[in-house]
Amino acid sequence: MSENKQLEEGLTFTPRYDAAGLIPAIVTDATSGEVLMFAWMNAEALALSVESGVAHFWSRSRSARWKKGEESGNVLNIIEMRTDCDQDVIWLRVQVAGDGVACHTGRRSCFYRVVPQQSDADGAARLVFAKDADAAHWRPKS
Amino acid sequence: MSENKQLEEGLTFTPRYDAAGLIPAIVTDATSGEVLMFAWMNAEALALSVESGVAHFWSRSRSARWKKGEESGNVLNIIEMRTDCDQDVIWLRVQVAGDGVACHTGRRSCFYRVVPQQSDADGAARLVFAKDADAAHWRPKS
Repeated sequence: MSENKQLEEGLTFTPRYDAAGLIPAIVTDATSGEVLMFAWMNAEALALSVESGVAHFWSRSRSARWKKGEESGNVLNIIEMRTDCDQDVIWLRVQVAGDGVACHTGRRSCFYRVVPQQSDADGAARLVFAKDADAAHWRPKS
Repeated sequence: MSENKQLEEGLTFTPRYDAAGLIPAIVTDATSGEVLMFAWMNAEALALSVESGVAHFWSRSRSARWKKGEESGNVLNIIEMRTDCDQDVIWLRVQVAGDGVACHTGRRSCFYRVVPQQSDADGAARLVFAKDADAAHWRPKS
């Protein structure tokens, strides 16, 4: 297989890090599919996540490895980890332990505000709090 | 409100771009919650996405704006757009038009391979094709 074909169709895990040695990680609720948060991993955080089954990240602001929920108890137990076609993104399907909160604001998800489409908005770009922002159980709306 | 408080609790949309002028965008299926793809937007692509209701991105490899599905017909109709607590990530909940394929490999989602947890794996990091990788309808497993 060509290098590109191996990357996309092969079964060798060869995560591709950016110039800073990081790979983006999308975190969703394993049951509902809600996107809970987005963070970055370096190779060590990724290896620890695979080994332990608990999500570890790299904090760019603190330049430090970070076990999500280490202080709050809201650790992210990994139900499934996936990578994308060109292996430069990680997707974690998790169950949040503790009180089920993934966002440092105390909300279940970091994505608690909607950006209205222009047809819905009164001109300026104003955010709207999502109706499900604090709901205990979330199901995708269609 | 302090600048940080405004960013996290305010309703002014102030997307924060990285040093290259880009913001990450997570794309999920609006119904099932499946993560379909991950891409980047510059300010123009984000504005076009808000205005048109159809996802536009910035291709880092081609250094060009990119309307997803422009050639294939598999455009991403935005059902809802969200941003996260510190407004440096975009989440698009979409319906894929055309034949429902979001990945350039012809699969519905780019995330068609699982990274087994070490306890599941035979030593080396080998990927596994997801059972639902090509299923027409996807529902999250718990």
